[in-house]
Amino acid sequence: MTIHILNPNSLVQVTDGITRAVAPIAAASPVPIMCHTLAVGPPGIETQAHVDGVVTPLLAQAKALETSASAFVIACFSDPGLAALREQSRVPVLGIAESAVLTAMTMGQRFGIISILSKSIPRHMRYLGAMGVLDRLAGDLPLELGVQALADEDRTFARLVEVGTALRDTRGAEVLILGCAGMTAFRARLEIELNIKVVEPCQAAAAMAVGRVALARAQ
Amino acid sequence: MTIHILNPNSLVQVTDGITRAVAPIAAASPVPIMCHTLAVGPPGIETQAHVDGVVTPLLAQAKALETSASAFVIACFSDPGLAALREQSRVPVLGIAESAVLTAMTMGQRFGIISILSKSIPRHMRYLGAMGVLDRLAGDLPLELGVQALADEDRTFARLVEVGTALRDTRGAEVLILGCAGMTAFRARLEIELNIKVVEPCQAAAAMAVGRVALARAQ
Amino acid sequence: MTIHILNPNSLVQVTDGITRAVAPIAAASPVPIMCHTLAVGPPGIETQAHVDGVVTPLLAQAKALETSASAFVIACFSDPGLAALREQSRVPVLGIAESAVLTAMTMGQRFGIISILSKSIPRHMRYLGAMGVLDRLAGDLPLELGVQALADEDRTFARLVEVGTALRDTRGAEVLILGCAGMTAFRARLEIELNIKVVEPCQAAAAMAVGRVALARAQ
Amino acid sequence: MTIHILNPNSLVQVTDGITRAVAPIAAASPVPIMCHTLAVGPPGIETQAHVDGVVTPLLAQAKALETSASAFVIACFSDPGLAALREQSRVPVLGIAESAVLTAMTMGQRFGIISILSKSIPRHMRYLGAMGVLDRLAGDLPLELGVQALADEDRTFARLVEVGTALRDTRGAEVLILGCAGMTAFRARLEIELNIKVVEPCQAAAAMAVGRVALARAQ
Amino acid sequence: MTIHILNPNSLVQVTDGITRAVAPIAAASPVPIMCHTLAVGPPGIETQAHVDGVVTPLLAQAKALETSASAFVIACFSDPGLAALREQSRVPVLGIAESAVLTAMTMGQRFGIISILSKSIPRHMRYLGAMGVLDRLAGDLPLELGVQALADEDRTFARLVEVGTALRDTRGAEVLILGCAGMTAFRARLEIELNIKVVEPCQAAAAMAVGRVALARAQ
Amino acid sequence: MTIHILNPNSLVQVTDGITRAVAPIAAASPVPIMCHTLAVGPPGIETQAHVDGVVTPLLAQAKALETSASAFVIACFSDPGLAALREQSRVPVLGIAESAVLTAMTMGQRFGIISILSKSIPRHMRYLGAMGVLDRLAGDLPLELGVQALADEDRTFARLVEVGTALRDTRGAEVLILGCAGMTAFRARLEIELNIKVVEPCQAAAAMAVGRVALARAQ
Repeated sequence: MTIHILNPNSLVQVTDGITRAVAPIAAASPVPIMCHTLAVGPPGIETQAHVDGVVTPLLAQAKALETSASAFVIACFSDPGLAALREQSRVPVLGIAESAVLTAMTMGQRFGIISILSKSIPRHMRYLGAMGVLDRLAGDLPLELGVQALADEDRTFARLVEVGTALRDTRGAEVLILGCAGMTAFRARLEIELNIKVVEPCQAAAAMAVGRVALARAQ
Repeated sequence: MTIHILNPNSLVQVTDGITRAVAPIAAASPVPIMCHTLAVGPPGIETQAHVDGVVTPLLAQAKALETSASAFVIACFSDPGLAALREQSRVPVLGIAESAVLTAMTMGQRFGIISILSKSIPRHMRYLGAMGVLDRLAGDLPLELGVQALADEDRTFARLVEVGTALRDTRGAEVLILGCAGMTAFRARLEIELNIKVVEPCQAAAAMAVGRVALARAQ
Repeated sequence: MTIHILNPNSLVQVTDGITRAVAPIAAASPVPIMCHTLAVGPPGIETQAHVDGVVTPLLAQAKALETSASAFVIACFSDPGLAALREQSRVPVLGIAESAVLTAMTMGQRFGIISILSKSIPRHMRYLGAMGVLDRLAGDLPLELGVQALADEDRTFARLVEVGTALRDTRGAEVLILGCAGMTAFRARLEIELNIKVVEPCQAAAAMAVGRVALARAQ
Repeated sequence: MTIHILNPNSLVQVTDGITRAVAPIAAASPVPIMCHTLAVGPPGIETQAHVDGVVTPLLAQAKALETSASAFVIACFSDPGLAALREQSRVPVLGIAESAVLTAMTMGQRFGIISILSKSIPRHMRYLGAMGVLDRLAGDLPLELGVQALADEDRTFARLVEVGTALRDTRGAEVLILGCAGMTAFRARLEIELNIKVVEPCQAAAAMAVGRVALARAQ
Repeated sequence: MTIHILNPNSLVQVTDGITRAVAPIAAASPVPIMCHTLAVGPPGIETQAHVDGVVTPLLAQAKALETSASAFVIACFSDPGLAALREQSRVPVLGIAESAVLTAMTMGQRFGIISILSKSIPRHMRYLGAMGVLDRLAGDLPLELGVQALADEDRTFARLVEVGTALRDTRGAEVLILGCAGMTAFRARLEIELNIKVVEPCQAAAAMAVGRVALARAQ
Repeated sequence: MTIHILNPNSLVQVTDGITRAVAPIAAASPVPIMCHTLAVGPPGIETQAHVDGVVTPLLAQAKALETSASAFVIACFSDPGLAALREQSRVPVLGIAESAVLTAMTMGQRFGIISILSKSIPRHMRYLGAMGVLDRLAGDLPLELGVQALADEDRTFARLVEVGTALRDTRGAEVLILGCAGMTAFRARLEIELNIKVVEPCQAAAAMAVGRVALARAQ
């Protein structure tokens, strides 16, 4: 049995980044963790059309993995197909955004989200409203860096520090969430730099999945 | 130019019901109103997988109609693809659930929703949370009648009266919303029977679209 | 039959501005739109005493127009008498603040309000709380320009740009609402300048009224 | 200096009931408490038109009393003119509904409201929304007894017990608020009968006013 | 290193019940799980004085365990000392109420809570308000069985079914939470009986702690 | 009979400051007001452990005063033991934070809180969430001055002006609350300097207690 992490975009390097990020968690898991790329997905989930469009192939991919699944993690910060996969699967299904938020809620009273682009913020707001947790949000601020620009690590880190500082000092965030599956490499450094808890959502979801696999043994 | 109403399920009789429901509104509209069936859609939107799955073909259908569109209405109470079509189109896009809720908010302080099945209620709750209007909700109660069972008009109407009465008298609803595009025929009768405003969501959205087409002339 | 727009202040030039603003909407309406001045109203609604004080004469004016009314619009951003006129009249009654908010809710996840003076903001907050839509508010910021100062168009527009920019960039507004019936002339220019949707409340309400007149034909 | 309690309806017997209800409070007050009838008010505040309509004469009455006022209390559960009188007066102004709610918030986590008629409940919901305290509301249920029917004390008390029991046992209210200035006589009996705190709003407001007069000495 | 579960009451049999409940989870945990009784605690946490009173000894107990701790779980549904222990400890600290709620939020849109006594419900309401998740609450209903009465298993299960059915069918709960650490033995049976997910809070917290221990390896 | 104000820290000079602050209120009270120091309390309530830790001795102190008590006031802005003392005592119990907030809610639509240190803000946020009044909060900003630093009056006042100005002008606060029992001396000066209502929480609670003692005479 396996915890399957589904990256709904087609970029293998993103999947590889997730694999690296969750490797230490996998080492503590009672079951293996395996990361998958959605070959037919877009190279990045940037629009609501992308979010909605990946659901059908994602559900098909998950169906093929169902018999070997202890749990599923959907590894895109828009949690595409989360409700649908919960209806389809008999095992726990976690989304990285939901997991990051729930984890952050145990680390501080108000969390801040660092988004890549401002155009994803309304999508986040709708989602946090659906989750019913807007009272816990300190703020959601954008890097205004596209996916490709993220490859420039120095510039990205500088912006992460800048935006994270604003969330911490101006908006009152006690804990930060990296609002994208593509920033796994920066978590630890940012946490040290800002002296504030930083949640990387793929790790948060993988960890919750490990817990849920353990919980399932009790049920 | 035309107001295009998109029924994202494949049932022509549902589309026909919508056409009949909005005919009086079309007569008062500055542009024609045309209803479309999504041939590749499921026969009914019953699961979250259906909701998410129709978005891609719906967007394609809308793209083909874009040049002739004054406005779009998505005619399913889960408002599938609403955010995505808003990103894609240059004209106003309305969903029947959102329009019904916004219309009801001008008719009473708290609205009740009559759902077909209890399993759609969590979907509604997520959506009303995303809309940020849960404080206006009196309650959402199910008929527990499947789409086929709706065809039995006497039984359906009896349940509508029963559930509507509960929402009005026990939950404090001042206005009711029919939580499905397939109950157009019952609105007027139910309003008279219960002596309370009843909003049929396809009509509410078509009417808002007429207003938005007029508004566009000022902009 | 007519859509009656009631300006509850006594300034004919404000009524004239509204008439100009809704003229393109009137051209698309199935019934005429007529704007009225409340001769006994104050020259401007600036205090809560003004808001409450105009209700009785406004209700009298509406009663005199009832037999010719398809719908009423109350054209002051405090929506004075909205609940009372809804209790009195048999036709749809819309307020420009409520209509602007509901319209903005279909254009973006969070709306910003540009108020004339900071002293009107607590009134807006009470009203948005009563509407139950505070989770959708990005912010409400004042021009700090009195009614007379609004006559200086260059200065007013400069402040509109300044405040609108703050709402868009600092508060995360996706759509802006002009929080006063006296700024009709600036909408289009501001929308272009800021590259963000701008809702003029008299137009929003007139457009919703057109829709409601169409809806009434189906009911 | 005096705490002026303004009954905005014209019924002297209601004013007399308030006078009796606050007499023990007056005995503990550093300043006298005087109750006034609004001669030009309606015999009862039953509609939103009544609520809005009494504001102008109420403000005039308060202005005449201003120089002798330590504080004002508006003694109608719709708190007509509360915001307006706060803008007009230099002394503390309290409404009986607001005071009852704030007092109840110190007596239990969720309060229930007993309304006279169901048609006043939407007005209460708007007001509690404006106050931002809906999360503390257990429920608001009507007696469905008109003002005249209240005169039948046995029947009224029986309904108070019935509705209060429902709020306590079904809705989870820990404390009850009598939602009308005309039920002063029943508070103590109801509290004993239901074994739950019962707040009479005129008393709650008079008591808060006594506190505010004391507070003013420190400021 | 160990996950320490702290039962803040003095009843060893409650601690034993927790040990049994989390045994299957311990088997899947990368570190041992050990349950502790607070010898100086009261025999049951029944009042707010109990909740507050156990914090100081609980913090002392946790301090003594700190060097061997991978994580702490506070095993009382009032989560006594949760915020304080988070300030004191360098490892993850989880409360069983918070963990149960966060877990339930991934299992259904609205959760119901089954409380032992109605007098604990206001405490829960304050806590859910502090967590900012009241929009996700379907209802909180009491068994009205004291701790000793819980020992009668048949009667307790009958009440659990009764109250659980009410939460599911009348309040719209999709998932239930057992609102006390002393009902561990009933979870599985109740889930089968009601055909709805049931969360036992000690298990939920232990599982989350397992995940957090795994997460810590990545950080 | 006496209103007992309980300072749960051990600093007599803080108790003396409270005594001075409430002296004018005591002069208008029907019963004496007496301030007490909790000898076994910490020199300042700075951590959650302090908040929880003082409850047991505070309850003991209150029990000893019960027979002479007309009301209790807990004089620490974290309101330690408020719920517990309400369960224990037969007389009204008020906390200074709760009272300050409820009083501020009658003075403006949105209140700002001036905290000593940023680390107390999450505690305030939890509390305001439990009170259900977050929609009324404009903001909570820290002086970042420790208890000792407060002794430097000039520096403290300068920071109070700075932070208060930010809350008023940037966050939209209409009324300010001093978020600590140790700033009694600055209220009047700050109110004049900022031209905005400033609530000192010990005074607010003492005044509410005076009102409640008066109310008790009616009950």
